[in-house]
Amino acid sequence: MLSPVRFDDGALKLLDQTRLPAEERWLECRTAEDVADAIRRLAVRGAPAIGLAAAYGLALGVRAGDGGAPLERFERAAALLGSTRPTAVNLQWAIARARKVAESRADEGTEVTADALLELAERLVGEQREADRRIGELGAAWEEGRLSQVWVGETRPLLQGSRLTAWELGRAGIPFRLVTDASAGTLMARGLVDRVVVGADRIAANGDVANKIGTYPIAVLAARHGVPFYVAAPRSTIDPDTPTGAEIAIEERDPREVTRVGGSAVAPAGAAAVNFAFDVTPAELVTAIVTEAGVLRPPYETSIAEAFRA
Amino acid sequence: MLSPVRFDDGALKLLDQTRLPAEERWLECRTAEDVADAIRRLAVRGAPAIGLAAAYGLALGVRAGDGGAPLERFERAAALLGSTRPTAVNLQWAIARARKVAESRADEGTEVTADALLELAERLVGEQREADRRIGELGAAWEEGRLSQVWVGETRPLLQGSRLTAWELGRAGIPFRLVTDASAGTLMARGLVDRVVVGADRIAANGDVANKIGTYPIAVLAARHGVPFYVAAPRSTIDPDTPTGAEIAIEERDPREVTRVGGSAVAPAGAAAVNFAFDVTPAELVTAIVTEAGVLRPPYETSIAEAFRA
Repeated sequence: MLSPVRFDDGALKLLDQTRLPAEERWLECRTAEDVADAIRRLAVRGAPAIGLAAAYGLALGVRAGDGGAPLERFERAAALLGSTRPTAVNLQWAIARARKVAESRADEGTEVTADALLELAERLVGEQREADRRIGELGAAWEEGRLSQVWVGETRPLLQGSRLTAWELGRAGIPFRLVTDASAGTLMARGLVDRVVVGADRIAANGDVANKIGTYPIAVLAARHGVPFYVAAPRSTIDPDTPTGAEIAIEERDPREVTRVGGSAVAPAGAAAVNFAFDVTPAELVTAIVTEAGVLRPPYETSIAEAFRA
Repeated sequence: MLSPVRFDDGALKLLDQTRLPAEERWLECRTAEDVADAIRRLAVRGAPAIGLAAAYGLALGVRAGDGGAPLERFERAAALLGSTRPTAVNLQWAIARARKVAESRADEGTEVTADALLELAERLVGEQREADRRIGELGAAWEEGRLSQVWVGETRPLLQGSRLTAWELGRAGIPFRLVTDASAGTLMARGLVDRVVVGADRIAANGDVANKIGTYPIAVLAARHGVPFYVAAPRSTIDPDTPTGAEIAIEERDPREVTRVGGSAVAPAGAAAVNFAFDVTPAELVTAIVTEAGVLRPPYETSIAEAFRA
């Protein structure tokens, strides 16, 4: 699988998710501001990739930031990057890990601190790759079924399902069919869905899951139809400091993402819209959470606490 | 409220729903073929309006159709128009009413039959207007609440919510906010929805409701959150000859409605999609059905049978 985040020649290269599938274009980020901008406008997609991009952004911020001691540069970049997306916890997790590195090396100067942060970012990429592999393995071992076809919700308003998941599945050679987000109920009622797998932007200590808007309705439908509902996410997505889903900040994005499609207005001029980017699925609807640290099962208070003790 | 279906100067004029809200353009239909084409490509929207357009289409078919006796002309037009949309029962209902008129006047010649069909179509428009008024009255009497704001689902793939419902509410001066179809769960979980009102394309004798795809998930969510779920529809939408929702034919439309938006591809080239146009909401999730013949409540087998005896 192509990694959408890589670093070379002193710049972070991001596969611009807003241009897919029409164009495979790599964005070059040379400053923390570049990275923050890319995260904010969704050129980077998915909580784990956002965390990785932020880690590189911190290294760039210390190296290229305006004046000050290494830790001042670090905190300026951290404040900027940390404010880009409120829901994705991997962002805060990456910043916390980077802060420890920065604090331990700051005495050695800006260059050494920046190098150490870059090294950390590279290590996090490796860890993420290993976590993805383990999640895939554990998920497969858990299910032991064969994947005959994936139903992909188009994922309005920004159509990440149509544009990105479809593109990724196509590259991986996995058969899929696109449907509108409103089709999940009918697919389940017709017996066409064996299991649901979703990602997560943040998982609370009790197992409540914040993920892309539309996840919660699918979980409710899955429960009604007796379809298992799995969350596949790296452990860094779990935030033991967030007790329940009620405490997760939900990002509200520009309403024009709803009233315009691909640059053209689809609603009458002046029409008001509300654009919640995420919703919260209560733990009671989640069959299991598949992480690289193991498959967590209810009661999640216990299994999540154990995963963090390990 | 502006009627989207009117007849003058020997032609049926349809407010082209595919052009709204950008353009208020009236289509002119002078033949049954014109009308069938308009229905098929959704220039006419909503089961009742489709029924009215078909009634005019039958009159045009008898008047302008190629040769043959009046009843032959009628049946040719009926076969054409009846095949345009499989789910909307008002279409079959309008054809059945028109057939009675055609059969009773056919002996008097083509011109007389066509005039009688035109007169029937005008009568159906009047009946529909009266039914709409009664449904509004009964719906309001039933709820006695004040409408402070309507949440409008954008209704992918063809965005009838963003393009049409929003436009209609705007003209009627009713405050509204647009959301993506996947947002209904979050709105209910946040306590922002007091009641749900949907239309119907066909209601079975047991109260199962076929309506635009996405209705069923909203009904499941409403039940979970204790939000009343109302269906507002003229009695002509109820088909006592369809025992349950399982017998309702569900139209599958062109997958390109999902993979393209406004003429541009949003999915990778060759991506497969499935485009069910409707879903079925089981009667158990329906709080009441508001018709011009009264507010029907469970058990629907009984209340629907009574509404047809009246």
